[in-house]
Amino acid sequence: MGPGPTNMLPSVREALSLPLIGHLDPVFIEIMEELSQGLRQLFGTKNQICFAASGTGSSGMELLATNFVEEGDVVVVGVNGVFGGRIVELCEKLKAKVIPIKVPFGQGITVQQLQDAINSAGGKVDLVWVVHAETSTGYIHNELKEFAEIAHKSGGLLFIDTVTGLGGCEVKIDEWGVDGAFSGTQKCLAVTPGLAPVTISPRAMEKFQRRKTPVPSWYFDIGKLLGYWNKSEGKRSYHHTAPISTCYALHEGVRLLLEEGLENVQKRYRDLAAGLTKELEARGFTYAVQDISHRLPNLHAVYPPSDIDEAKLRKNLLDDGIEIGAGLGEFAGKVVRIGIMGANADAKVIANFLAALDKALPNSKK
Amino acid sequence: MGPGPTNMLPSVREALSLPLIGHLDPVFIEIMEELSQGLRQLFGTKNQICFAASGTGSSGMELLATNFVEEGDVVVVGVNGVFGGRIVELCEKLKAKVIPIKVPFGQGITVQQLQDAINSAGGKVDLVWVVHAETSTGYIHNELKEFAEIAHKSGGLLFIDTVTGLGGCEVKIDEWGVDGAFSGTQKCLAVTPGLAPVTISPRAMEKFQRRKTPVPSWYFDIGKLLGYWNKSEGKRSYHHTAPISTCYALHEGVRLLLEEGLENVQKRYRDLAAGLTKELEARGFTYAVQDISHRLPNLHAVYPPSDIDEAKLRKNLLDDGIEIGAGLGEFAGKVVRIGIMGANADAKVIANFLAALDKALPNSKK
Repeated sequence: MGPGPTNMLPSVREALSLPLIGHLDPVFIEIMEELSQGLRQLFGTKNQICFAASGTGSSGMELLATNFVEEGDVVVVGVNGVFGGRIVELCEKLKAKVIPIKVPFGQGITVQQLQDAINSAGGKVDLVWVVHAETSTGYIHNELKEFAEIAHKSGGLLFIDTVTGLGGCEVKIDEWGVDGAFSGTQKCLAVTPGLAPVTISPRAMEKFQRRKTPVPSWYFDIGKLLGYWNKSEGKRSYHHTAPISTCYALHEGVRLLLEEGLENVQKRYRDLAAGLTKELEARGFTYAVQDISHRLPNLHAVYPPSDIDEAKLRKNLLDDGIEIGAGLGEFAGKVVRIGIMGANADAKVIANFLAALDKALPNSKK
Repeated sequence: MGPGPTNMLPSVREALSLPLIGHLDPVFIEIMEELSQGLRQLFGTKNQICFAASGTGSSGMELLATNFVEEGDVVVVGVNGVFGGRIVELCEKLKAKVIPIKVPFGQGITVQQLQDAINSAGGKVDLVWVVHAETSTGYIHNELKEFAEIAHKSGGLLFIDTVTGLGGCEVKIDEWGVDGAFSGTQKCLAVTPGLAPVTISPRAMEKFQRRKTPVPSWYFDIGKLLGYWNKSEGKRSYHHTAPISTCYALHEGVRLLLEEGLENVQKRYRDLAAGLTKELEARGFTYAVQDISHRLPNLHAVYPPSDIDEAKLRKNLLDDGIEIGAGLGEFAGKVVRIGIMGANADAKVIANFLAALDKALPNSKK
């Protein structure tokens, strides 16, 4: 019941343990093709480039930055939690001119703040990068379409981190105009960690073609990766050995979501979130994100009641077999993070959690 | 029966499908600690830094290069197959002055060639990097101790790629004086791909401390990774979500090898290799590596008999449920690669393969 890794569904665990086949086996290539197609539906995109990078969620951030951020690029980054901070750090390592928009944890950046930041850089920007769903605070940005319009008008791209959004919240890459997005598998996709779903727009690839310097990576070099993942390149060629078993599992995780229907899934998340919110508030928990319209349905970052020691609470729950997450960054020691994702986005699991919570709370006093 | 991914043993598949726990769960931290300890035994090292990077084998190369190769560094790379070529490419991307020692596929580099290459750079070198076990040709370097002495005398480090060596061949990092090594999980460890075992010497870390520029990566930044993997750093802190399930599987794969005993495992590989060599030669196959003392026991890169079409042969075997590998690089279309690794390093499996081969050969004529 933490911010992920979340529990897997039985058929996903089964897929994980299937016998291995080769990374160029015709059957595996079919799996890759179906996986890409399924991820396109999840991302809401027709982008040809849509695949799973061979690393955990953050490797998706690394892939996007390594290929699309160059020395001297002007990059505006929304920092409203720990994960925005990482984007700043990585882009600085790649020698970009980074303009962070820092707002307090629990809040988001506004359209005006983005416009102001771009204006401060002379009105021109190479890239705007924001966190769609902030795993450290439970904040969701609903302004991605406006952000994309501003980025494009200023000559740049819009990238998003939707590690905790994809599969649980609405994601509409094409409709919003997002040029690059990455996610993880261990959140709403309910799959073991080890892959990073990524999609990249043709507009981003145009920028890639204009690179002045070589990509400072071999493992994440998109030029090389496409030879393996991209059907339109013709015959697939070996780049690296894909994490076969995790691909099986992701294929199954995506299939389950599409079978249920994305709108049904999102409704399930919203309904369960409303119920959990009521229950948590009734027990004296208060939300880190005050604006209800900006709360993630699948991740509840909450302050415990004032007489409760958050570390004791987490320890007592863990002793009972239930993990919830600690606070990160400036929320460390203050906030706990309760996730309802994957197999845990289920009324019975939540009822079971609330019963455990009621047992743990009296023993978790300061 | 290819160069990997190879088949997993049943208990490894079982471990893979166990329920997920958190990446900072005390039980998972114990697993990480045992895994590091087991990998130290496999690598033959007392290095504190010994862990599994969160990507497939080549991510280990990426990790070593990204942290330890800087702009202007003089790097001598042994290129006796496809994988040496990748090291050159990556180091060039990182703006090192790369001096490749190119020898024909099927051969290795000699002590004299290494010394000459260093002399050509004025006798000083920052790094020597060779492939211990070349997966594209089946060549194994037995001169790593001499290579290390030369590298150290010239002021540099020795790194090795032992993706196809670790767990099947002798690896003695400390005795040889190797400063950095990476491997994969889908070869002799008989685990699904998705992790790269890595070890780094204190001497390499001294070079790291002298870096002039930031590491151009967040995901592979060793400074950040150690906070999560390195016990000596004290309390483990979150960097990225480790691929939990693949760690379970690797933990079990390493345990199985240590239970059998590394010397017993190596003897098993040698004995099976000798038998397979006889059988292949009796059928008219000839080895890409002519020098018997430099042949990998676990990977047999062979030219088929002159009347056999290698693509037809692979196709016929695959239709029968058996994968063998194609040739890579200049060996493409010429050589096939037969692996006896993990669950396939077994007399019955090999007998079964030979029976299938005898069925496939008559139907694979040019």
